Amino acid sequence: MTLTGKMLIGGEAIAGSRETIRAIDPATNKPLEPGYPGGSGEHVDQACALAWAAFDQYRETSLAIRAEFLETIANEIESLGDELVERAVAETGLPRARIQGERGRTCGQLRTFARTVRAGEWLDVRVDTALPERQPLPRADLRQRQVPLGPVAVFGASNFPLAFSVAGGDTASALAAGCPVIVKAHGAHPGTSELVGGAVARAVTKCGLPKGVFSLLFGSGREVGIALVSDPRIKAVGFTGSHSGGIALCQAAQARPEPIPVYAEMSSINPVFLFPAALQARAEALAQGFVASLTQGAGQFCTNPGLVIARQGADLDRFLGVAAEHVRQSPAQTMLTPGIFDAYQAGVGSLAKHPLTQAVAAGLSAEGPNQCQAHLFVTQARDFLSDQALLTEIFGAASLIVQCADDEEVRQVAEHLEGQLTATLQLDEPDLQNARALLPTLERKAGRLLVNGWPTGVEVCDAMVHGGPFPATSDARSTSVGTAAILRFLRPVCYQDFPDSLLPAALQQSNPFHLRRLLDGQREV
Amino acid sequence: MTLTGKMLIGGEAIAGSRETIRAIDPATNKPLEPGYPGGSGEHVDQACALAWAAFDQYRETSLAIRAEFLETIANEIESLGDELVERAVAETGLPRARIQGERGRTCGQLRTFARTVRAGEWLDVRVDTALPERQPLPRADLRQRQVPLGPVAVFGASNFPLAFSVAGGDTASALAAGCPVIVKAHGAHPGTSELVGGAVARAVTKCGLPKGVFSLLFGSGREVGIALVSDPRIKAVGFTGSHSGGIALCQAAQARPEPIPVYAEMSSINPVFLFPAALQARAEALAQGFVASLTQGAGQFCTNPGLVIARQGADLDRFLGVAAEHVRQSPAQTMLTPGIFDAYQAGVGSLAKHPLTQAVAAGLSAEGPNQCQAHLFVTQARDFLSDQALLTEIFGAASLIVQCADDEEVRQVAEHLEGQLTATLQLDEPDLQNARALLPTLERKAGRLLVNGWPTGVEVCDAMVHGGPFPATSDARSTSVGTAAILRFLRPVCYQDFPDSLLPAALQQSNPFHLRRLLDGQREV
Repeated sequence: MTLTGKMLIGGEAIAGSRETIRAIDPATNKPLEPGYPGGSGEHVDQACALAWAAFDQYRETSLAIRAEFLETIANEIESLGDELVERAVAETGLPRARIQGERGRTCGQLRTFARTVRAGEWLDVRVDTALPERQPLPRADLRQRQVPLGPVAVFGASNFPLAFSVAGGDTASALAAGCPVIVKAHGAHPGTSELVGGAVARAVTKCGLPKGVFSLLFGSGREVGIALVSDPRIKAVGFTGSHSGGIALCQAAQARPEPIPVYAEMSSINPVFLFPAALQARAEALAQGFVASLTQGAGQFCTNPGLVIARQGADLDRFLGVAAEHVRQSPAQTMLTPGIFDAYQAGVGSLAKHPLTQAVAAGLSAEGPNQCQAHLFVTQARDFLSDQALLTEIFGAASLIVQCADDEEVRQVAEHLEGQLTATLQLDEPDLQNARALLPTLERKAGRLLVNGWPTGVEVCDAMVHGGPFPATSDARSTSVGTAAILRFLRPVCYQDFPDSLLPAALQQSNPFHLRRLLDGQREV
Repeated sequence: MTLTGKMLIGGEAIAGSRETIRAIDPATNKPLEPGYPGGSGEHVDQACALAWAAFDQYRETSLAIRAEFLETIANEIESLGDELVERAVAETGLPRARIQGERGRTCGQLRTFARTVRAGEWLDVRVDTALPERQPLPRADLRQRQVPLGPVAVFGASNFPLAFSVAGGDTASALAAGCPVIVKAHGAHPGTSELVGGAVARAVTKCGLPKGVFSLLFGSGREVGIALVSDPRIKAVGFTGSHSGGIALCQAAQARPEPIPVYAEMSSINPVFLFPAALQARAEALAQGFVASLTQGAGQFCTNPGLVIARQGADLDRFLGVAAEHVRQSPAQTMLTPGIFDAYQAGVGSLAKHPLTQAVAAGLSAEGPNQCQAHLFVTQARDFLSDQALLTEIFGAASLIVQCADDEEVRQVAEHLEGQLTATLQLDEPDLQNARALLPTLERKAGRLLVNGWPTGVEVCDAMVHGGPFPATSDARSTSVGTAAILRFLRPVCYQDFPDSLLPAALQQSNPFHLRRLLDGQREV
């Protein structure tokens, strides 16, 4: 398949009319063909009109057809074969094996949502049957189901060109919920986006769905992004990216005559707490595991462990020594884009110059463009508590170790943290009481708590939470990874005294989807 | 019990220091003793500090204890006896039977949430067990539960002094979720609020809960209300009231360093669609039912039918004629407050002067202060579509009949509507196809759809949705009435590879709450 440099608006290849976006191979700093002229407000309008026209039909597709659609997207992505892998490698600088793994995750995610759609629990069917004889007043027949919010705007992320991009988690969960999707591709990987967008569009056609179910736009965040979020036909937004980008979308969504929900996943420093017994028993292994998690993928994960908190002393010194040694031996890695590399360098530079931190170690020197060195810094808890700037995420393989005088300082540091995607506890049996005391704080701060693991690596499953209190995300009430993400794009509707033939299938008396309904206060088994 | 005119901050009676609020008996326009000096920013700070201190303990109370607490509140409210009924009647002008019914509803609501808490489905427990042998990567043990958001600010409504006020739906659902609650009482019924607040505070003590679980403040929306919503320890807001009030709280919540969810139920005109066969078969009965719903409680319901849409013709003329006659015979009724009465008069005056509407009928003249007459107006669909002002809610017993030339105009009017709490379809068998064609539009517009009923009367049950797209509410993803309201105040947390003894009870291997978990993708039965 030859890349065309065009957008996909309701399945039609349409050339943009604004400034051309061209991917850059970060390993060589060379631009990649073709160029992708950006879309305009008119293109946004076209895509929204098609999505709106498709909505009422798409949202009432049967569970079987919608699930098949998600599976067909996965099949079509796999059919792209090596071309997709090669283009994604060229556009991101990520290793081939990583892209292959991410493709597997992306297709697995689509198939997982297909299973979730078929199971139908997300419909949350509740039935309270009529009680005509009740005193003092009869009760009507009341039935509730969930319906999709409407067309969703999805903003692709730079750091997962497949799993958090055109057919990534936000798209999969919104389509699963019954929402048409308009993706604004991330400018760093337009070719990958075009390929995946084509796969989705072919699935739309193969499944006989209205063409407006999916569109793919290129263009600037300021023009295309804000126009999308401001369009009255868009009813929700999914975003993974920077704090400033997420906040801008939230503000645009709130400024609409009809405000809409924005699910922005923005920034997290993912604190790791090293408890005394664990640190004493296995400082070296912890240091090794920590640096492996820190440097994985050049640290370009939202769950990268950017903060380590422990009580000072000989055990922490051992941890620091070994971690420093591992960092010094870690090779430089190509970052996703020159812009991300520059931001990383600036962030590391600020921390290096910060009067309250000390640089402990840096990784091996760069041998090519956009290659970052890992960095380790250390500070004292009282200093950490004194400057909010030390809470800022540095996107990349940099981490700050906070040395605490005692358990009370550990607690103070934990309470001082902003909202996080994850918090990790490294503990052994004797640490359990200490950990238990800290848990209430961490539950208030983070969406996922880990024991004796590392935060990088986010499983796509029912129990996953990839979310957390602000500013980790704009809405802690949901997750962007895992099957519970479908709940983001739904709202309840109640049907009162409807004749059976007028009810949506999910609510009909014969229960054609075989759902375990909440029937007169009891869960059906 | 003697009313003290004091607030309740963590169970302590504390006198305010700002301008005194005094209820007015709307039937006589006479002020009622005692005065309630308003709270200041310091009182807000005290209540928030206590709520915050109580949060970690309260949120981990067992399901049994939390349920018992809700039931104890209901018992304590019932123990107030006639004093509560008499005070509420004096403060609202509502009939005694209505207040007694509302008390029953309020206590029933608390007991219903107690049952919901005990059932524990709201914890939405999801368990994905470890797969250590999985290739290419093992899977960790992942367990998800819902945790409460944090202390919630609740704003009492004027029109339900019990059911949507101090111990109303927002308070009950937030307490059920595990959130401490701070209520800002509505200034129209401070005595009722003090009585009910005392009942809640006694239940806190009887159940041995931390005293910060509940506080009751009086004061101005501008000072106490905004201070509450802006306090960093408040994590969500429940509000029932005017559009402008709700929007002000939403803006304050968004302007915080950490934005928080606001569940504001604001305005709705609750369209009623009369389909041809139903209109032909039973125009008179429909007219009678409509006017009964319109004038119930002086029309002071958020679900009051403020808009009727039908095809013009002889059948609609019959409906109009009978409805007009019923309106003319309807007695004037005392409204809740002089302010509400003035706003109603102004709204009716605007509609009467509007060049595109005609006044059809008005109810019997007032015989006392703050008594409103019911009003019926009529307009043509093309005129209705031409002026957004005709979409504005008039809080009270006024309704506008929109005459449509054909089905297409009916559809256009439906599409033209803003978000609504309810939409009603009056239909007979031959209308089913017409109704089916309109349903997709109505599902997008409203939270509850009714067939052959009237929108006033909101059942507290599992399937109820009292909510809807903006501007009916600020967040269509939830309901303020019914057991699903507990979901508003929760967020998911995932526990990865936790030792069993460190897990919260709901997630432990032994499943002590006997929950039907989603276990490795399957629902337990």
